[in-house]
Amino acid sequence: MSLLVVGSVALDSVETPAGKVEDALGGSATYFSTAASHFTGVRVVAVVGDDFPGEYVEKLLSRGIDLDGLERKEGATFRWSGRYSQDLNQAITLDTQLNVFESFNPKLPAAYKDSEYVFLANIHPELQLKVLEQTPERKFAGADTMNFWIDSEREALEEVFRRVDCVMINEAEARDFSGESNLFKAAGKLAELGPKYLVIKRGEYGALLWHEGEVFFAPAYPLEEVSDPTGAGDSFAGGFFGYLSSRNAYDPDTVRQAIVVGSVVASFNVEDFSLRRLLDVTSDEISNRVEEFVTMIRFDADGVILS
Amino acid sequence: MSLLVVGSVALDSVETPAGKVEDALGGSATYFSTAASHFTGVRVVAVVGDDFPGEYVEKLLSRGIDLDGLERKEGATFRWSGRYSQDLNQAITLDTQLNVFESFNPKLPAAYKDSEYVFLANIHPELQLKVLEQTPERKFAGADTMNFWIDSEREALEEVFRRVDCVMINEAEARDFSGESNLFKAAGKLAELGPKYLVIKRGEYGALLWHEGEVFFAPAYPLEEVSDPTGAGDSFAGGFFGYLSSRNAYDPDTVRQAIVVGSVVASFNVEDFSLRRLLDVTSDEISNRVEEFVTMIRFDADGVILS
Repeated sequence: MSLLVVGSVALDSVETPAGKVEDALGGSATYFSTAASHFTGVRVVAVVGDDFPGEYVEKLLSRGIDLDGLERKEGATFRWSGRYSQDLNQAITLDTQLNVFESFNPKLPAAYKDSEYVFLANIHPELQLKVLEQTPERKFAGADTMNFWIDSEREALEEVFRRVDCVMINEAEARDFSGESNLFKAAGKLAELGPKYLVIKRGEYGALLWHEGEVFFAPAYPLEEVSDPTGAGDSFAGGFFGYLSSRNAYDPDTVRQAIVVGSVVASFNVEDFSLRRLLDVTSDEISNRVEEFVTMIRFDADGVILS
Repeated sequence: MSLLVVGSVALDSVETPAGKVEDALGGSATYFSTAASHFTGVRVVAVVGDDFPGEYVEKLLSRGIDLDGLERKEGATFRWSGRYSQDLNQAITLDTQLNVFESFNPKLPAAYKDSEYVFLANIHPELQLKVLEQTPERKFAGADTMNFWIDSEREALEEVFRRVDCVMINEAEARDFSGESNLFKAAGKLAELGPKYLVIKRGEYGALLWHEGEVFFAPAYPLEEVSDPTGAGDSFAGGFFGYLSSRNAYDPDTVRQAIVVGSVVASFNVEDFSLRRLLDVTSDEISNRVEEFVTMIRFDADGVILS
């Protein structure tokens, strides 16, 4: 099926205890689309400057990603630089240069308007709404966001959450948005806005799915070495939407499977810097890790006997 | 089967955003045994002072708990007082008075020496070793500990870990013990000491089981209101060991079930202060919540198709 992502393509400079990279390929739409490309075709709407390296474009094209919606503008590409300390849970932003991303105004190529699966990565909620207006044939849309928009663009963000099928945010954002310190109360409040599915990302603790009052918990795949957590959330989303799109389904059981697939894809992503691992991971590696993952949540429910 | 716990019986004064109690029934052996009593008979070895209220003894006896090993000594009962702030994850200890617990020297009644399931709650590791010496017929023993012993009694604690079948500690303790910030490396190091099972408690994120390199993740049961987290770990352990003892089994599948049962029992415990909820929860309530829990981890593994 046709999967569309709208978000950022960036040049990241990242330092972690495992090493560092400079002006490496990054951005939410980049992580998402590379992750999704292992399951389905994916279309990208984003903007880069005229300094964006051709070799990065080649890398994305080599994954079969459709870049017809990648606008190239005069000026510099969005740059982010950050550092992670030992516990790897929190990025410290050292510098953000929005550059051409500041005036990003997503216009979908005509051929993208029939997109059925749509992911709105973390951009201004008004822009997310504009994308929704341009995808009248969508069947399943999801949105991410960040604390900045929760605090400054509340109304538009609520409108986004009302209009998508799946809100995908992290734990701290869910608490921030709802003003509830209890995560399940926070989820309840978010769900009231109307999205059928709510996926709350909990970093090293995995993800929680909320669907019409039903909860599903998935752990994060256990890794002994994490090189660079950048893009974990977006590659999770890419695996998740890529899987749904490949199955052309979004019933609760398929969504649970998509969470496991997303977790597995995210686990590969953090094994190396930038997109290195996501670009070269094979289908067999993904399948094997999904199988392994399944053994970690396998539970003999019929056998529980309480006398 | 015969289940034995050795630990503390205490008078707790606790304040949380939901309220407070003074000199309430508490202690690791108390939480453990009350939790376990919903599944199996349980024997307690602990010490209280001559100020310990008879009504508290009656409450435990009303659950069918065997208190023949509860020593009553001249002096005051162990008292702990603490406070939890809004996020409820961390207790701030305001005061600890060990009193008669300071010279606790567990001596098992003759009738306890055939105990087959044995839980060593958080006491001095040398005392834990003494209990192991007095239970020659044990089939499955577990031990808890705390940072204080990890830092001050390392050698004795390692000996305990080598001799039990199941080490049950929290995430921070596992990291502290191993010196590894990565939890899975930490688990690997702990497992090297020899316990067949390792249960790492992650508070609101649930628990992780490690068994011969295999991992199982269980979430915590989602609660919208937590009144008092005191005793969550010990009631988890009580549900876990109570279930194993009731099934008289400790194969990997049964241990996974025991983790779910322990999580459910712990979830009831934190709904009210002290032992209030654990004393009055019914079998039906426990069964229903176990069933509900199962739906939250249910996963259609056969359906995952990666093309």
